[in-house]
Amino acid sequence: MPYVTVKMLEGRTEEQKRALVEKVTDAVAETTGAPKEKIVVFIEEMSKNHYAIGGKRLSDES
Amino acid sequence: MPYVTVKMLEGRTEEQKRALVEKVTDAVAETTGAPKEKIVVFIEEMSKNHYAIGGKRLSDES
Amino acid sequence: MPYVTVKMLEGRTEEQKRALVEKVTDAVAETTGAPKEKIVVFIEEMSKNHYAIGGKRLSDES
Amino acid sequence: MPYVTVKMLEGRTEEQKRALVEKVTDAVAETTGAPKEKIVVFIEEMSKNHYAIGGKRLSDES
Amino acid sequence: MPYVTVKMLEGRTEEQKRALVEKVTDAVAETTGAPKEKIVVFIEEMSKNHYAIGGKRLSDES
Amino acid sequence: MPYVTVKMLEGRTEEQKRALVEKVTDAVAETTGAPKEKIVVFIEEMSKNHYAIGGKRLSDES
Repeated sequence: MPYVTVKMLEGRTEEQKRALVEKVTDAVAETTGAPKEKIVVFIEEMSKNHYAIGGKRLSDES
Repeated sequence: MPYVTVKMLEGRTEEQKRALVEKVTDAVAETTGAPKEKIVVFIEEMSKNHYAIGGKRLSDES
Repeated sequence: MPYVTVKMLEGRTEEQKRALVEKVTDAVAETTGAPKEKIVVFIEEMSKNHYAIGGKRLSDES
Repeated sequence: MPYVTVKMLEGRTEEQKRALVEKVTDAVAETTGAPKEKIVVFIEEMSKNHYAIGGKRLSDES
Repeated sequence: MPYVTVKMLEGRTEEQKRALVEKVTDAVAETTGAPKEKIVVFIEEMSKNHYAIGGKRLSDES
Repeated sequence: MPYVTVKMLEGRTEEQKRALVEKVTDAVAETTGAPKEKIVVFIEEMSKNHYAIGGKRLSDES
């Protein structure tokens, strides 16, 4: 606790993901006072055909 | 904003998904007054072995 | 099935929410072929102090 | 209704998942009074590189 | 880990919720082999005007 | 995009929440390369009677 979910398009490298969970955890610990070892981060990736803005999927954009 | 998530069994065609996000976005814009370009739709697919009704997975039904 | 979640700022009227779930359900039935009576819609409301774009909460905007 | 989501690391067998949804459904029915046939269970699996505790992903642990 | 979310209509008593999380945790531990002390359960309640089946909210049913 | 959800116990001050969304947004921008103005953060609060570890709700701990 806290539990953080980061939902983003697929394609980031393992190195980016490794840095992402580290920095986000630091930010949450610093601002909420939660002990770092209790902070959980989940990454959820989505593909361009499952994500739409304004009624148009990213995979359908020209 | 708003953010819409549609969770459904895998198997729909790309054409169905394309129409789904378009029509759902129209429905949300029309009824909430949100500008269409601010409406986000996520599709989440599940497989039959990860979905159960009444304690029985769809993949286990005979 | 399908299961639709609409996440939006609080403040819509009951009449708007009633229309929202009706029109969204129609849009999902029409485009996925799912029987209307099996489509579930959840509304989740958020407050302006729990929603941020670009690092700034809506409640903090001047 | 109710809707139960179980999020866990990938790797359980089909037999474990089959038992999981059955036993969880029984537990929910028994304690909430909901009719068993109305209880829905979703399984969501995550991989070790998308799950971090204390700022470190499980895939990065030595 | 695992993380279980139970989404249901508001109205259950504290005693029911207490029993719910206990029994669900037991069911998950027994079937997945996860140590009981690592299993997390979240309860999410919804109101009848935020939940619709077949395009009709429970609060609109006569 | 990305969309970040922070789920935590209720009780943080507005000042803590303001800092939380700011620092988390910075962390995501820095590590993923996403433009800051496209990063969305949602805060979800839970109460102690809706959150359990090891089958016991925080509200039931003595």
